[in-house]
Amino acid sequence: MQQAQHKFSIKTSGRGFTEFTGIVRGFLTRHPCQTGLMTIFCRHTSASLLIQENADPSVRRDLETYFERIAPESPIYEHATEGPDDMPAHIRTALTQTHLSIPVMDGELALGTWQGIYLFEHRRAPHTRELILHLIGE
Amino acid sequence: MQQAQHKFSIKTSGRGFTEFTGIVRGFLTRHPCQTGLMTIFCRHTSASLLIQENADPSVRRDLETYFERIAPESPIYEHATEGPDDMPAHIRTALTQTHLSIPVMDGELALGTWQGIYLFEHRRAPHTRELILHLIGE
Amino acid sequence: MQQAQHKFSIKTSGRGFTEFTGIVRGFLTRHPCQTGLMTIFCRHTSASLLIQENADPSVRRDLETYFERIAPESPIYEHATEGPDDMPAHIRTALTQTHLSIPVMDGELALGTWQGIYLFEHRRAPHTRELILHLIGE
Repeated sequence: MQQAQHKFSIKTSGRGFTEFTGIVRGFLTRHPCQTGLMTIFCRHTSASLLIQENADPSVRRDLETYFERIAPESPIYEHATEGPDDMPAHIRTALTQTHLSIPVMDGELALGTWQGIYLFEHRRAPHTRELILHLIGE
Repeated sequence: MQQAQHKFSIKTSGRGFTEFTGIVRGFLTRHPCQTGLMTIFCRHTSASLLIQENADPSVRRDLETYFERIAPESPIYEHATEGPDDMPAHIRTALTQTHLSIPVMDGELALGTWQGIYLFEHRRAPHTRELILHLIGE
Repeated sequence: MQQAQHKFSIKTSGRGFTEFTGIVRGFLTRHPCQTGLMTIFCRHTSASLLIQENADPSVRRDLETYFERIAPESPIYEHATEGPDDMPAHIRTALTQTHLSIPVMDGELALGTWQGIYLFEHRRAPHTRELILHLIGE
């Protein structure tokens, strides 16, 4: 049984989705294992992770619109230290994922045909987001 | 330390919950381990996973009604390739889980007394959903 | 490769957040490992887990207000066996996390600077909540 880890950054260009399935697959190529568990961790509370459809980009546009609707910018929040998009970013993070775990099967990530791995930036401005990959298996 | 994996399908009958705690327990019985970690992964973006109360079925009926209310079918979505229930299914998946990890303790899944493991189908029509179990432990 | 596990309880004082990052760090101190994966599991369906900002407490107050707003107490629920806060508690659990996995890197939990680990109590009355820590690594 072996482990591998990788810390890396993704630069976002403000609110929205950045796919990084290729980064996770590339890490697995450099640390090959037949059977294992891949965990992805996001070191932030105003950006999060989602596995979503990677075929039609309109899915991501509708998801962005949806989160704008259920967690809008608003003067009702007490916490607005970094601006009106601060608290909605924390809420959207709470409603999605800070970590994902995906089995490795027959040497491949066991994602479904249409599943892609996304970083979901919730702040308006571009940010650099730190992620960690952890792999255990053999 | 050892690993075991299992890919299987669940046929759903349209929107709603299908409990499969028994399948996960059966897998653990066939691959006994005293201490470990069980991960469940759903290979879809329009069906998801939840751990919820397995005693009173009214909890699941209320949950279904709730998700109908916060992620309704609506003409506002751009993405409707597979019908009006297509985009609400992606949203409900984003708000719940694509994977679950449950410790194995003293040879048993460490679920609480009232916790059951559910597949949450978000499409109106029956579907066949692929799931993967991954166990690591000894 | 080694594993360690720990079952413990947290007493909550009703709705709201209880940080327990220190308990997870203390467990890692007692079971040191350089590289690994820490999983936290909540054995309940009316309390849940969140990684959120641990600096400004107004973030948690706004999160509590937000969940009151999107999952309010209401006479519309069929399930109210334990009172009007019963079903909202199941909904808030479904929208957040029952388990968290955090990589261990260089002997430390790989949390970001502002990330804390919280138990999110959804019932009005104080409860005793059982949690399980599982660590695998070396």
